[in-house]
Amino acid sequence: MKLSPLQLFGLFVLGAIVAPFGDHGHVITGTTEYLWKDTLFVWDSAGWFVLMVGTGTALLAEIRLHLGPARTEMNWRHGLAGIAAVMGIYALTALLKGQPLVPAVVLVSALGVLTWCALGDKAGAICGVIAAIGGVANEVATAHFGWFRYDESIGTLFGVAPWLPGLYFAFGVTTSVLAEILAKRIR
Amino acid sequence: MKLSPLQLFGLFVLGAIVAPFGDHGHVITGTTEYLWKDTLFVWDSAGWFVLMVGTGTALLAEIRLHLGPARTEMNWRHGLAGIAAVMGIYALTALLKGQPLVPAVVLVSALGVLTWCALGDKAGAICGVIAAIGGVANEVATAHFGWFRYDESIGTLFGVAPWLPGLYFAFGVTTSVLAEILAKRIR
Amino acid sequence: MKLSPLQLFGLFVLGAIVAPFGDHGHVITGTTEYLWKDTLFVWDSAGWFVLMVGTGTALLAEIRLHLGPARTEMNWRHGLAGIAAVMGIYALTALLKGQPLVPAVVLVSALGVLTWCALGDKAGAICGVIAAIGGVANEVATAHFGWFRYDESIGTLFGVAPWLPGLYFAFGVTTSVLAEILAKRIR
Repeated sequence: MKLSPLQLFGLFVLGAIVAPFGDHGHVITGTTEYLWKDTLFVWDSAGWFVLMVGTGTALLAEIRLHLGPARTEMNWRHGLAGIAAVMGIYALTALLKGQPLVPAVVLVSALGVLTWCALGDKAGAICGVIAAIGGVANEVATAHFGWFRYDESIGTLFGVAPWLPGLYFAFGVTTSVLAEILAKRIR
Repeated sequence: MKLSPLQLFGLFVLGAIVAPFGDHGHVITGTTEYLWKDTLFVWDSAGWFVLMVGTGTALLAEIRLHLGPARTEMNWRHGLAGIAAVMGIYALTALLKGQPLVPAVVLVSALGVLTWCALGDKAGAICGVIAAIGGVANEVATAHFGWFRYDESIGTLFGVAPWLPGLYFAFGVTTSVLAEILAKRIR
Repeated sequence: MKLSPLQLFGLFVLGAIVAPFGDHGHVITGTTEYLWKDTLFVWDSAGWFVLMVGTGTALLAEIRLHLGPARTEMNWRHGLAGIAAVMGIYALTALLKGQPLVPAVVLVSALGVLTWCALGDKAGAICGVIAAIGGVANEVATAHFGWFRYDESIGTLFGVAPWLPGLYFAFGVTTSVLAEILAKRIR
């Protein structure tokens, strides 16, 4: 393992704190709806979703450090910018409820690409793609299980939102940056 | 005084020009409403509001230069970026009328943080916090006096909008950057 | 000619691919409507519009390299950021349908300025202004010919949208950056 147990736990907590803030917007706008209601909820979010985001954050950061050396010039300012970018894009996706999908997808995807242009390296792009594929696959699966659903006007990508890859891509780039910053603390 | 009278006047004028453009959006969307109508208006903005923003801009810039040395690498491109960021966020807050508050606040706050990440230093963060506290306190007070009010769906932070700290934070960071650029001209 | 035929063709294709994605948003939101329907369409876009954007992209890039030396530090990351910025702003203009015009114009113009602050040089600003004037003049003319129209709530700038200069400015800055990157390949 490249990251210490404490660092992995910190990343888990970060993901688990960010997720309910973004997810709240999806729930109150009717972008998504939880169908499995007889489970633990954190604010408006199902516990299993919060656990998945937290675990994904820690796991992806660990993967990042196996993909190549961390840039030494990255500092917590870059990490903060990445977290703000992801939270801003996440909130924006909720505010796009009721808007036509193509411009919504173009806007969110453009913001995901800009997040990479400002903060990412090659390994960060790989983490972004891993997050986009993994995150979408996970949501397609859990929607298929009937645990939740996207509003039918939005869930046009195998049942999930077509702007989801752009959002998860930004999440993957940011997680990669956070891993790089933490890696400096190891050495 | 660190800034010359002419520089302070220029900052006052800048604030007094920017304010009515942003405030117009708040008024026409019904985000805010002036209740004290028997006073001087500049476009849709009460004169006292324009004076307050102009004075606040000059005062905060002066404060900035007492907080520590100005970075010599800051130039008018950074200042222009800061002004564009503040005007863009200000306009965005008007466009968020009718949207749910939590994602609106997350988005505006994220943009405020990104403004700092791109442009700010430690003293800029302090100026951002001073502006957030001072700006919110000032609006809480003037709303309490009955001079204006936020729409009741929005004014959930002691009567003012909960995205107001994020907007004023970006304003404070930008004012700090402008002070740094002007400080170079003094020496 | 500063650019090779292949580079000019590549720029033409890029413009011709980006245009229908942005234009689709304008058409489906009713921001614009094609009145000359008896012509070739690419998705929702008239062929003549796609040709104009493609030609304008190649032409403006060539002009850029006659305005002064290209910066050697610009790379394809800057070009990608510019393309993402233009596509994002283009999509945003569609999502602003129904919103009040002044804050919409302030927001789009601020994003155009920020695109320049992040990516542009002096020649890039000139290209941005050329694109803003030329793009608006072209749309005013084709709207005057009756080929298309803006929704009457939006077309307040000689029949076209008042946020159009901000969008074309970002397009001109980005095209200038792309020209600089391609110029490096010439030498």
